[in-house]
Amino acid sequence: MSDNRQVIIASLPTGALAASDFEVRSAPMPEPSDGQVLCRTIALTIGAGQRAGLQGSASYAGAPEAGRLMGGNGVAEVVESRAGAIPIGALVAAPTGWQEHSVHKATAVQVLPPDTDPATALGALGTNGLTAYFGLLDIGRPQAGETVVVSAAAGSVGHVVGQLAKRIGCRVVGVAGAADKCRMLVDELGFDAAVSYRDPEFRAAFKDATPDRIDVYFDNTGGPVLESALFRMATHGRIVCCGAVSQYDTSTPGPGPRGVPGLLVNNRVRMEGLLVFDYADRYDQARADMAAWIAEGSLKPKITEFHGLDQAPQAFVELLAGRTVGTTVVTL
Amino acid sequence: MSDNRQVIIASLPTGALAASDFEVRSAPMPEPSDGQVLCRTIALTIGAGQRAGLQGSASYAGAPEAGRLMGGNGVAEVVESRAGAIPIGALVAAPTGWQEHSVHKATAVQVLPPDTDPATALGALGTNGLTAYFGLLDIGRPQAGETVVVSAAAGSVGHVVGQLAKRIGCRVVGVAGAADKCRMLVDELGFDAAVSYRDPEFRAAFKDATPDRIDVYFDNTGGPVLESALFRMATHGRIVCCGAVSQYDTSTPGPGPRGVPGLLVNNRVRMEGLLVFDYADRYDQARADMAAWIAEGSLKPKITEFHGLDQAPQAFVELLAGRTVGTTVVTL
Repeated sequence: MSDNRQVIIASLPTGALAASDFEVRSAPMPEPSDGQVLCRTIALTIGAGQRAGLQGSASYAGAPEAGRLMGGNGVAEVVESRAGAIPIGALVAAPTGWQEHSVHKATAVQVLPPDTDPATALGALGTNGLTAYFGLLDIGRPQAGETVVVSAAAGSVGHVVGQLAKRIGCRVVGVAGAADKCRMLVDELGFDAAVSYRDPEFRAAFKDATPDRIDVYFDNTGGPVLESALFRMATHGRIVCCGAVSQYDTSTPGPGPRGVPGLLVNNRVRMEGLLVFDYADRYDQARADMAAWIAEGSLKPKITEFHGLDQAPQAFVELLAGRTVGTTVVTL
Repeated sequence: MSDNRQVIIASLPTGALAASDFEVRSAPMPEPSDGQVLCRTIALTIGAGQRAGLQGSASYAGAPEAGRLMGGNGVAEVVESRAGAIPIGALVAAPTGWQEHSVHKATAVQVLPPDTDPATALGALGTNGLTAYFGLLDIGRPQAGETVVVSAAAGSVGHVVGQLAKRIGCRVVGVAGAADKCRMLVDELGFDAAVSYRDPEFRAAFKDATPDRIDVYFDNTGGPVLESALFRMATHGRIVCCGAVSQYDTSTPGPGPRGVPGLLVNNRVRMEGLLVFDYADRYDQARADMAAWIAEGSLKPKITEFHGLDQAPQAFVELLAGRTVGTTVVTL
């Protein structure tokens, strides 16, 4: 076999991420041991949260390091198997990293049905879709008729959150970073309203879009949008803290939001952080639900696709700059 | 009868509260209508949260106004009754305000057993004690062996929180503003440790006092102590947002705490605001529990007492300056 092409972290970014923070290199083809499979990557997904993983010890993903393979989840085909339960040709979801080939213990991969669409497996049925599911349903707990607001609403998590809330019968308002994204949310995905945080009149537009205040705010951004939402929360509102993308791609994170804790007290607001891994024992049910909703048409996953491993760094840059929609996928 | 002496808000404070922000005046003696009782105030309690009520529209207590009677809760004796169910001489808890006499609908007062100690009724069995009870037990939900930290720990709410957590079998750490308060918490009330936020080595001392991090942080202060606690929270920790006394007595509230929302996400922390009025239908059970714990000696209420209605403004100033311990009570 040939060598294994990989994308490594060339240098830890200190400000906004650049494609030059990564390098492509050739490494020896990995060889599976007993109980392992060798996988050829078909598609990778990139999530904004991975930028937090490059900030150092503050992240749940552990400390990053220059010279290391860039981590990430992918869909892959098994090309060599030393695990009896998994045949050659099987399609699997695995933490492949940004590389053409990877080896995994058989227990560390999830075998997918052969007709699986890799982009859907990585998107609505992947980590980000599951994050939307558990964050909204378990932590946000919206009821029909309530107002649900989601930030980074056109993103991988956000566009699923909004559609799940619509299924429940909520008024759904998206916050995104561009007028065309806002139009897509309303026209294609059925959001009731969408406002751009880059709009100079954002605060007024946000208020107009939430006339009954906010029962559930699903926060993917932190920063000023979180602060704006805090001031619009309804009594007994819930804030799902899922991510803080506004604070990731910078070396100078902003101060905390005003209104904490005063507004939480006055309005008896609950604010709760979420990592999807805590819900691993319920993934199967969640994936079955989401697959059924996709099949019936009430959940429309959106994908932005890049082609080729070499494009992964630029895809990451585009994602962080807000120039992708839905789940960002790199096909190999 | 004579006139009714009252303390009114002379001017809304813009910086630190001063006794001169209040005035004592004589008003006509109020007269009860049908279904009402006339009450003579025996004792008043003052809570730090009332300072927030003087800041304007941001508070749950409604907008304050110069020239108005200062509000507050008291224990009073019924001196005239036009409500058959409540006899003259009955002892009641009521929102008397800072005045010698007040009239109330019979349904708006709580009749107390005749042998009630007014200070206990206003302290551990009053609003602040109930706040400690529901905030800790319903929102914080500590388990035996967990670490519970409470700020303003020598205050009316805080000193009850710590003792309730000790009853459950938690490691209890108090944060207070003076070394003598810290000694009292450990020596008299059984706290495992107490640290002063005014200690120049506060962060190191706080870390030393929480070697297993913090499972439940009961926050009465907001501001820098909240921020310090955020950085010490354990996975799946809970923050009970009860008050923000560090932000009340100033015209320039600080920024929000760093770490929101990032640390909430990484450690899956739940942060939830509390107003005790939401639990009104469970007050009777809570009071019965607390009275039993006082009787058995596992809950020792602390009181700082001032004498005379004229002293109420100064009592409020002392409270906000951190020079009182336990519940602040003014006896008339």
